[in-house]
Amino acid sequence: MLLLQLLVQLRLPLLKVGLLLGLLLLSSCSRAESLLVEKQAFEIASFTTQSGQLIAPVRVGWEAYGKLNADKSNAILITHFFSGTSHAAGKYQPDDAVAGYWDAIIGPGKAIDTNKFYVISVDTLVNANVFDPKVITTGPATINPATGKPWGLSFPVVTITDFVEVQRQLLDSLGIQQLHAVIGASMGSFQAIEWAVRYPERVQRLIPVIGTAYMDAWAAVRLERWAYPIKQDPAWRDGDYYAYGQPVQGLSTAVAYITQDALYPTAFNQRFTDPLQDQAPQQDIRAPFSACQQLMAQAAERSKLQDANHILYLVRASQLYRAGMGDNWQQALQQVKAKTLFLPASGDQLLLPTMSQHSAAAMPQAAQVQYAEIPGDYGHLDGVFNIQAVSAKIAAFLN
Amino acid sequence: MLLLQLLVQLRLPLLKVGLLLGLLLLSSCSRAESLLVEKQAFEIASFTTQSGQLIAPVRVGWEAYGKLNADKSNAILITHFFSGTSHAAGKYQPDDAVAGYWDAIIGPGKAIDTNKFYVISVDTLVNANVFDPKVITTGPATINPATGKPWGLSFPVVTITDFVEVQRQLLDSLGIQQLHAVIGASMGSFQAIEWAVRYPERVQRLIPVIGTAYMDAWAAVRLERWAYPIKQDPAWRDGDYYAYGQPVQGLSTAVAYITQDALYPTAFNQRFTDPLQDQAPQQDIRAPFSACQQLMAQAAERSKLQDANHILYLVRASQLYRAGMGDNWQQALQQVKAKTLFLPASGDQLLLPTMSQHSAAAMPQAAQVQYAEIPGDYGHLDGVFNIQAVSAKIAAFLN
Repeated sequence: MLLLQLLVQLRLPLLKVGLLLGLLLLSSCSRAESLLVEKQAFEIASFTTQSGQLIAPVRVGWEAYGKLNADKSNAILITHFFSGTSHAAGKYQPDDAVAGYWDAIIGPGKAIDTNKFYVISVDTLVNANVFDPKVITTGPATINPATGKPWGLSFPVVTITDFVEVQRQLLDSLGIQQLHAVIGASMGSFQAIEWAVRYPERVQRLIPVIGTAYMDAWAAVRLERWAYPIKQDPAWRDGDYYAYGQPVQGLSTAVAYITQDALYPTAFNQRFTDPLQDQAPQQDIRAPFSACQQLMAQAAERSKLQDANHILYLVRASQLYRAGMGDNWQQALQQVKAKTLFLPASGDQLLLPTMSQHSAAAMPQAAQVQYAEIPGDYGHLDGVFNIQAVSAKIAAFLN
Repeated sequence: MLLLQLLVQLRLPLLKVGLLLGLLLLSSCSRAESLLVEKQAFEIASFTTQSGQLIAPVRVGWEAYGKLNADKSNAILITHFFSGTSHAAGKYQPDDAVAGYWDAIIGPGKAIDTNKFYVISVDTLVNANVFDPKVITTGPATINPATGKPWGLSFPVVTITDFVEVQRQLLDSLGIQQLHAVIGASMGSFQAIEWAVRYPERVQRLIPVIGTAYMDAWAAVRLERWAYPIKQDPAWRDGDYYAYGQPVQGLSTAVAYITQDALYPTAFNQRFTDPLQDQAPQQDIRAPFSACQQLMAQAAERSKLQDANHILYLVRASQLYRAGMGDNWQQALQQVKAKTLFLPASGDQLLLPTMSQHSAAAMPQAAQVQYAEIPGDYGHLDGVFNIQAVSAKIAAFLN
């Protein structure tokens, strides 16, 4: 109504007012509606890991938003985080409850503007959400055609480089040689950085969000704590549980830990009951706090789409990461030619802003490093839930 | 030698030079040497917890540095942290490898000057280090005279208030009505704050170091993660393991987690091997990183003096803490009359500086709150290992 009053005050002929209103409504509709997207599958008949082991076949899912231009120069690759999938934006059906995780910044007229860019995203190997019908991945839970049984722990340890190589083969198959940018959050930042290190001529811009170019002893040990509940669960059976059912207790606990580590106390405390409201824990050290029960219930629900071994493989791939995957990540970074924008979250307690700072400090001159922090109450997850806070920064960097 | 040259240049008569040198050597000796201290025992024949349960008897250890003055007005109480004991300063024998944990600030001429103050420190109930011959505590590992067997989980859940009440009875027995100050780090800050809330007339100054006046859902759930490895260890046997031996794996893991959570990455990475130096973890997701093995080995060694149930009881006492132990900690803080100095550690990731800030903001005017951060590479443990960084601040506040 305010807008209508304004237009009338501007004394525009009523017909024009009607037209303008129609256009505004249309544009606000198209802003509110998410893109409709489709999951596609990419298969590599025989894939050799960096460690020299064979996975045959590899199948991964991918999706894309926007249109590839004639000279295939407008592609942006989005690499996903630990618990994520290739569903970075849009909806599969108009009535999907939620859109892809970065829908706030990917779409027509948004920071990563699908009117200009062809945005592509790929499920990683050993994706956590292997039982999500919209995820296509290959990992320990996949049937190995050579044996007719799930790979289990016979699946080779895969690394961030292997994730990148699968993506590279997909892009090759699409004829995409140049990437306008690679952008990824958290474990996605590892892949993005690795792209810029391995293929410096192919990556023009790099945005590591809540990321780092190295995992140190502190981070590797911290992540081992996600693996511990699974490895200690007798139902894990040393990874060979597929005939018996998942190690539900260990898997749920791991997912609960991952959730908490990614949340700053402000957001966490808004979601879970204050311990002072609980009576039972005051009587018995075995009695759980409501907050623990609530977190575990959420994690149990979420982990129904996940596989315990896939979580362990993702933990290991993350623990092993450092730029270039050799013994000197600072030196490896010297390969980068991409203009680089680091976007850590101020409250991140998982991949600390200092890790982004140390990574940025080790980048070569060619990277013309920029650095900005994402504010918010979520901590690590501000890189997902509050990414719109830096959308202007991202838009400017891409243009 | 530089000093000698200086003195000679000052053309002092040689006799005076000799005297001065002697004095300097003497004072530097007395600075280097720690106080010699003695552990004493305090027994309460029958102690009733705040929840109304009986512990008979309670025995705790305590030690003191300096001399109580005639009107008993110069006492300072030091309350210890989760993994700590009453050994806050000095040595039991001149050749002890290390002195008490705050020896840098407690002693003659130090920030907490034992030439002026009578400094007293008490082992808590359910102290973690129950098998340290220098620790005297009462908890699940203690023989209950009523049954002739260890209390186990029949030991009542005890709270920070119960710790304070044991200390109060000890001070009463010594005729100490006034405390010049109560100072404690971490879980010790809970006790210090509770002293100032319960006995506002008795506490003149309060210094919560790396502390907080409340534990929220985030902190309570985080601490439950220390309990999890013990509770999941089959050797824990629901707390009834005393006839069989400790749940060593669970206990060591808990101690490892506690250690990591108290250390900022900078200090952690200086102590443990970088993951990029490991080969085995690249081949098998079950193969541990050297850093994990090193941390676990240290924790296993350290936990030999500890009891798994005691850890669980300390976790619960910590989880349940909020000032006043009622349903409104901010209101409870209004009781405080002590001048207050909050000293969080800048890099603390366990009890975040924001928790000290929120606590400080809730203090009444009477507290004339001061706030300063402890710098350093240790994170939470800067409140112990780098406490000398704020020694001038503490000294000024006490005088």
